[in-house]
Amino acid sequence: MSTISLTTDFGIADWYVGTMKGVILGIQPRANIVDLSHEIPPGEIRAGAFALAASCRFFPKETVHVVVVDPGVGSERRAIAARTMNGFFVGPDNGVLSWALARERIKAVHQITNRRLFLHPVSNTFHGRDIFAPVAANLSRGLPIEKVGAPIKEFVKLDWPEPQRSANSIKGEILYIDRFGNAITNIDRAALPSPDESAWEIFLRRKRLCALQAFYQAVARGQPMAVSGSSGFLELAVSGGSAAQNFNLKVGEEVIVRVRSGF
Amino acid sequence: MSTISLTTDFGIADWYVGTMKGVILGIQPRANIVDLSHEIPPGEIRAGAFALAASCRFFPKETVHVVVVDPGVGSERRAIAARTMNGFFVGPDNGVLSWALARERIKAVHQITNRRLFLHPVSNTFHGRDIFAPVAANLSRGLPIEKVGAPIKEFVKLDWPEPQRSANSIKGEILYIDRFGNAITNIDRAALPSPDESAWEIFLRRKRLCALQAFYQAVARGQPMAVSGSSGFLELAVSGGSAAQNFNLKVGEEVIVRVRSGF
Amino acid sequence: MSTISLTTDFGIADWYVGTMKGVILGIQPRANIVDLSHEIPPGEIRAGAFALAASCRFFPKETVHVVVVDPGVGSERRAIAARTMNGFFVGPDNGVLSWALARERIKAVHQITNRRLFLHPVSNTFHGRDIFAPVAANLSRGLPIEKVGAPIKEFVKLDWPEPQRSANSIKGEILYIDRFGNAITNIDRAALPSPDESAWEIFLRRKRLCALQAFYQAVARGQPMAVSGSSGFLELAVSGGSAAQNFNLKVGEEVIVRVRSGF
Repeated sequence: MSTISLTTDFGIADWYVGTMKGVILGIQPRANIVDLSHEIPPGEIRAGAFALAASCRFFPKETVHVVVVDPGVGSERRAIAARTMNGFFVGPDNGVLSWALARERIKAVHQITNRRLFLHPVSNTFHGRDIFAPVAANLSRGLPIEKVGAPIKEFVKLDWPEPQRSANSIKGEILYIDRFGNAITNIDRAALPSPDESAWEIFLRRKRLCALQAFYQAVARGQPMAVSGSSGFLELAVSGGSAAQNFNLKVGEEVIVRVRSGF
Repeated sequence: MSTISLTTDFGIADWYVGTMKGVILGIQPRANIVDLSHEIPPGEIRAGAFALAASCRFFPKETVHVVVVDPGVGSERRAIAARTMNGFFVGPDNGVLSWALARERIKAVHQITNRRLFLHPVSNTFHGRDIFAPVAANLSRGLPIEKVGAPIKEFVKLDWPEPQRSANSIKGEILYIDRFGNAITNIDRAALPSPDESAWEIFLRRKRLCALQAFYQAVARGQPMAVSGSSGFLELAVSGGSAAQNFNLKVGEEVIVRVRSGF
Repeated sequence: MSTISLTTDFGIADWYVGTMKGVILGIQPRANIVDLSHEIPPGEIRAGAFALAASCRFFPKETVHVVVVDPGVGSERRAIAARTMNGFFVGPDNGVLSWALARERIKAVHQITNRRLFLHPVSNTFHGRDIFAPVAANLSRGLPIEKVGAPIKEFVKLDWPEPQRSANSIKGEILYIDRFGNAITNIDRAALPSPDESAWEIFLRRKRLCALQAFYQAVARGQPMAVSGSSGFLELAVSGGSAAQNFNLKVGEEVIVRVRSGF
């Protein structure tokens, strides 16, 4: 058995994801196909990039990760496949693979041009079905990556919003809001200005919001907190509730961590 | 491994779909079960019929397609299984299989009556679990279709809304609105009145809406267009947006394609 | 192949469920992973308990059922694994497994403490990924349950809301509202006060609501009815509509069944 992960903005109401799986299983019947998310907001390349980067290292070696968040489908944008020490990454060359690839040891990146691998006629609106699914299934079966097309040196990389550090504080932003209303920031726990967790205070909109806690129920129900989240980043949360809703948080909003005076 | 596709109006919040999969895997542990959609609007037989017809030809040979959009469950409506050159189709005899079967070479259609295949007691509200799942799993394992019940000559067929053609125009309607807000019509690209794509204009509510384009980003963000969609039908879309939302489109609404004067 | 079922409150928009599957497949590539539901309302332990109890008996023998509805993640709450005659049950010791286990013949219950099975570092916010997924995958591969940790005698059990019986009536409550707006009660059909179905009348808010019917379309479209639902409990429904919406039903609301006078 071999694993193929799918990340798209297709939603699950229509037949698009299921059709990709039908195409994959026709080529590689032994695929374990895993849905990473199909609820990436339409065309939101950064959300797709973050979902993949936050999860791909938990998959088996040799997994083929397919991401189709592809507003430029049918245009001149390239399609690419990358081989790393851990597996394969397949998708449009619009940056959606780039945050995951930034953490990988890349062995090769190839443009996907071999039309013999595609479904025909190739539509101009659904390369997930006609190009990415058959290419991923073939890679999963052992097709050498050289067969998908010529190697390329450069591919589109999204900027990572780097937090700004000073002596006693770090300024970051909200990257992603999850289903629980937890707001995941770009502030890496390892980057925090003091090793003593009790020294940290989190500020939102120039006002102190909360302290850092070890887990969600460490504060009373309805109270805000920050935790070191499962993706390795600082998260704002509300115990038994939704931080996003309580504080009307949005992606891109500024979050500041300061060392308390006295530390 | 063998593939079984599932299309239902069960949604994914409840345990209904998972229970069907549990039943299937108890009979056929080597099934690759693919969700086509479980978000067919409750009881909307035409939406289920369209989802299946738009996607079933992309599945491996011998796939068993199960559709449970079944407002008449427990009543006298029949359950049927069809064998075609490509695979099997299993569901209630209410027309939900008929648009897919209209494009298939049918070898046999049987009424499902063999109670030895069913789960007992058979509920009156969940034939997906008690009848369709075990019958599909058995067919997937190689049970001859004759074993499900007696052959039948007729089954319920939904009308297909045929577009109306004239010398310079074709009048169709919106069949389905997808997650991106793209409106899929019943106008087959092959049926369009002129082979020159630049000659076509699309009219909505007696006003010119847009021209045909090759892909979504061919027009500026926010602009309307028509494309030849991945299902083979003309789609109304908005680049980087939702045509359904921008123009308040509804299923059943009239769409007209005309050849521009001068062509 | 072996089956692992997943029930969580993670939703499907984020990468959490997919990440659990990646972890499982890295340990047990031959797992058939079935989603029971990921739309349990956040932290609603009783909804998760009911979903599992309503469906687990339809799964193959030796299925490993994993439930992660876990508001206390990271706190002192225990993690447990149970072995029954039918399979395995893995989750937090907060009662979410207890309604399913109440119907099972239990062979052993163990606390999960063997850190060699866990992913490291173990997060304080995502034990689904770091503890429950790898433990479930190992059990699915044949790891003896003794290896997960020491046996325990007691575990947290949720109260089951027992209906109140009198000579001519039974008083229950709404336990769960499904996607169709059907309201599933705690009134077991077998417990009903008369074997003659036509003798029953259902009362809501002190007024007669409807009679019991054999199936949904037994009454005219838009009319209320009760049916003996697929979970074995009395359900309130509206033919071709939503009982929850029509009558503004809520979980916990009282429902009374009476024998009609004359019977």
